Amino acid sequence: MSAPRNPRIDSERLWGDIMALGELTEPDIPYTRRSFSPMFLKGREWLSQRFADAGMAVRLDAGGNLIGRLPAADPALGTIMIGSHSDSVPSGGRFDGIAGVAAAIEVVRAFRDAGHLMNHPVEVVDFLAEEPSEFGLSCVGSRAMAGRLLDDMLAYKNAAGEALGSAIDRVGGDVANIAQARRGDIASFLELHIEQGRVLEDTHVDLGIVSAIASVTRVEIQFEGRADHAGTTPMHLRRDAGVAAATTISFVAAEAERRAAMGRGHFVATTGVVTVSPNAANVIPANARLIIDIRAEDDDVLEGFLESLDAQTLAIAQAASVGRSGWKIVSRTRPAHCDPQLRELLGQSAQSLGYSVLDMASGAGHDAAFISMIAPSGMVFVPCREGRSHTPEEWVAPEALAAGAATLLETIIRLDTRPAPANRTSTQGARQ
Amino acid sequence: MSAPRNPRIDSERLWGDIMALGELTEPDIPYTRRSFSPMFLKGREWLSQRFADAGMAVRLDAGGNLIGRLPAADPALGTIMIGSHSDSVPSGGRFDGIAGVAAAIEVVRAFRDAGHLMNHPVEVVDFLAEEPSEFGLSCVGSRAMAGRLLDDMLAYKNAAGEALGSAIDRVGGDVANIAQARRGDIASFLELHIEQGRVLEDTHVDLGIVSAIASVTRVEIQFEGRADHAGTTPMHLRRDAGVAAATTISFVAAEAERRAAMGRGHFVATTGVVTVSPNAANVIPANARLIIDIRAEDDDVLEGFLESLDAQTLAIAQAASVGRSGWKIVSRTRPAHCDPQLRELLGQSAQSLGYSVLDMASGAGHDAAFISMIAPSGMVFVPCREGRSHTPEEWVAPEALAAGAATLLETIIRLDTRPAPANRTSTQGARQ
Repeated sequence: MSAPRNPRIDSERLWGDIMALGELTEPDIPYTRRSFSPMFLKGREWLSQRFADAGMAVRLDAGGNLIGRLPAADPALGTIMIGSHSDSVPSGGRFDGIAGVAAAIEVVRAFRDAGHLMNHPVEVVDFLAEEPSEFGLSCVGSRAMAGRLLDDMLAYKNAAGEALGSAIDRVGGDVANIAQARRGDIASFLELHIEQGRVLEDTHVDLGIVSAIASVTRVEIQFEGRADHAGTTPMHLRRDAGVAAATTISFVAAEAERRAAMGRGHFVATTGVVTVSPNAANVIPANARLIIDIRAEDDDVLEGFLESLDAQTLAIAQAASVGRSGWKIVSRTRPAHCDPQLRELLGQSAQSLGYSVLDMASGAGHDAAFISMIAPSGMVFVPCREGRSHTPEEWVAPEALAAGAATLLETIIRLDTRPAPANRTSTQGARQ
Repeated sequence: MSAPRNPRIDSERLWGDIMALGELTEPDIPYTRRSFSPMFLKGREWLSQRFADAGMAVRLDAGGNLIGRLPAADPALGTIMIGSHSDSVPSGGRFDGIAGVAAAIEVVRAFRDAGHLMNHPVEVVDFLAEEPSEFGLSCVGSRAMAGRLLDDMLAYKNAAGEALGSAIDRVGGDVANIAQARRGDIASFLELHIEQGRVLEDTHVDLGIVSAIASVTRVEIQFEGRADHAGTTPMHLRRDAGVAAATTISFVAAEAERRAAMGRGHFVATTGVVTVSPNAANVIPANARLIIDIRAEDDDVLEGFLESLDAQTLAIAQAASVGRSGWKIVSRTRPAHCDPQLRELLGQSAQSLGYSVLDMASGAGHDAAFISMIAPSGMVFVPCREGRSHTPEEWVAPEALAAGAATLLETIIRLDTRPAPANRTSTQGARQ
């Protein structure tokens, strides 16, 4: 390390930023700062000031991402980008996304305080609309940066009839020149995020080093039966859509357990949405609608699951004398694999600071999944209490957050000073 | 038969009455005439006039039942009561209940037209609020007539805060003297009703002679798990309330099929209400609520089912690592057995007119279930298209309706003229 003084994370300052940003919320539904809303823009105004205070030049890219850039000793080197997102779900928490943006600002402040000049340009990013927005799309900003924000997505409309493209312009983007948001100069991207699960807490490990961001597939299945009288229709004359739905839910859980035990990475499947109609005590369910959410680290395991689900639900419908009136893959992403060298560097950095680490897949989606398409990317997870997220009770211990931020700082310093690999990945990032 | 001319059902006149009553509906949600509503009272005003036109003295009893009484040759004999109800569910049909009231009026008109004087007093009844009312109670009028409308029920309030007792007074009842509604003089009660099922249609039989009205039991079950993230929570760490609910739905269907096959009368069970929360694609269901509706002709079969359901849902909860946070028998009635002599007489009458009959239990509840507590009671079912009921598409063929009304007429004539049994049942009715 070439710094005259060692840059250090100020844990209290970092914590203070997160608490301060938490105050900027819709007052009746804490903690809410939905993308594109006036409250979101208020948060960004506050963040821009923090970026500037840390010595960064602040700008918005064409995709509406808020970016702060630190001067570098060698501006020709690839950019080391760090960050996450500042938008929230309705009635969400104070840490999801925000922890990663705040930690990135703190890393930059640590450099400034130590008078540490980086060789690489460092950028802090607050990606636009990572959470599912009112336009029905998530990861809007990171899609734009990866060149994956397509014209048909820009035409998506919210309930008020505004197009996503117009909304991006409204918050300071430049949709007419959206291609300019695409980056080819990122040498490494690192994102700190809360785990949003309970694996770290359950295993008493300090930090998670993400191996891959699992793919997210959503399947909508509908069964159509007949709304006969619950009292007068003999069992053998029924066409009960609820029974078909129930058998499907049981199948999904059992089959997911089987595939999770295969040892081919993270695999989970959940039937989270169950709607039965008419949903009256004295009427046999005529319709049932399920949404099944599937996360897979291995594409083949997912493919096998989808094939079984398709075949089984047809058989289930037949057995219940109902029709499978709907089968739709509503959305599907690919698994994103984190860069092996960045994973190693994150793990070494954490351990050099005395933190225990666990290699783990992310079951939740992240901006890093899109950035991994254009640059080597890595993620560090900090544990959150009881795995709770997307709720006001979301909580991260200040020490856990400081551990994650310190690991991020140490990793960036190592990245900045390793001679060959930094160049190699920079070139690779620009090429992809 | 002692009549100088044979009384005959006028099929077109009967049909005309039903169509005319169907016109009296909330215009935006046909066919709706909910008990206690201004539209219901409009229907009753129309009915009162039809009662009077048929030669009956019209009154309201203390329980709010509309009653027309025909003079008798021997007023000391027990009353032969016929009828059903004129209220509907929201967006219901034109025949449920109404067919029975209209057929009863037509029977009386047939006597009048033929100049036929009955030995027994005959009463036509339109029971108050047979359908589940906004006070959460069904069969209000027949409960009152059977002495089963209890003080705590009279205190039930609707959404507007009105007590059921006040509402009964408002529509012309006399709650202060509710005991006067209780009858001890009914020699026989007969109700014509649509089947509300598809057994007659499927078996191509003209009429159903009801053996018993199955008991109705409603059980509410709740499971409580944990709302973890659907992407990040490994399968083995889940507490998925939706999975427990699904296993329960499958159990209910399989166990009901098994018990229906026991040959101990009508048995069906349905999970009609399924509510999962938070019902979001990316959240493991934390809570699930089911309402199970069970209809049984045999009390022991029901008892066995409830015991299995109780034990099984505890085991299901344990297997899914959730809690069974709710188990409640929301409501429960006893099965009501129809009078064997009336069943025989109804069957003989139908067959003498050339109609085929099927002995069958009623899976739906009826006013006759309450009246059977104070008098020998019988029911005749007419088939309805595809078993559909409680929907605007509810439909009965005019000939099927005429067949049912003619059977009712023939049965009453036989009842009126059989010397010994009429007396016997009259005394029995008064004693119960």
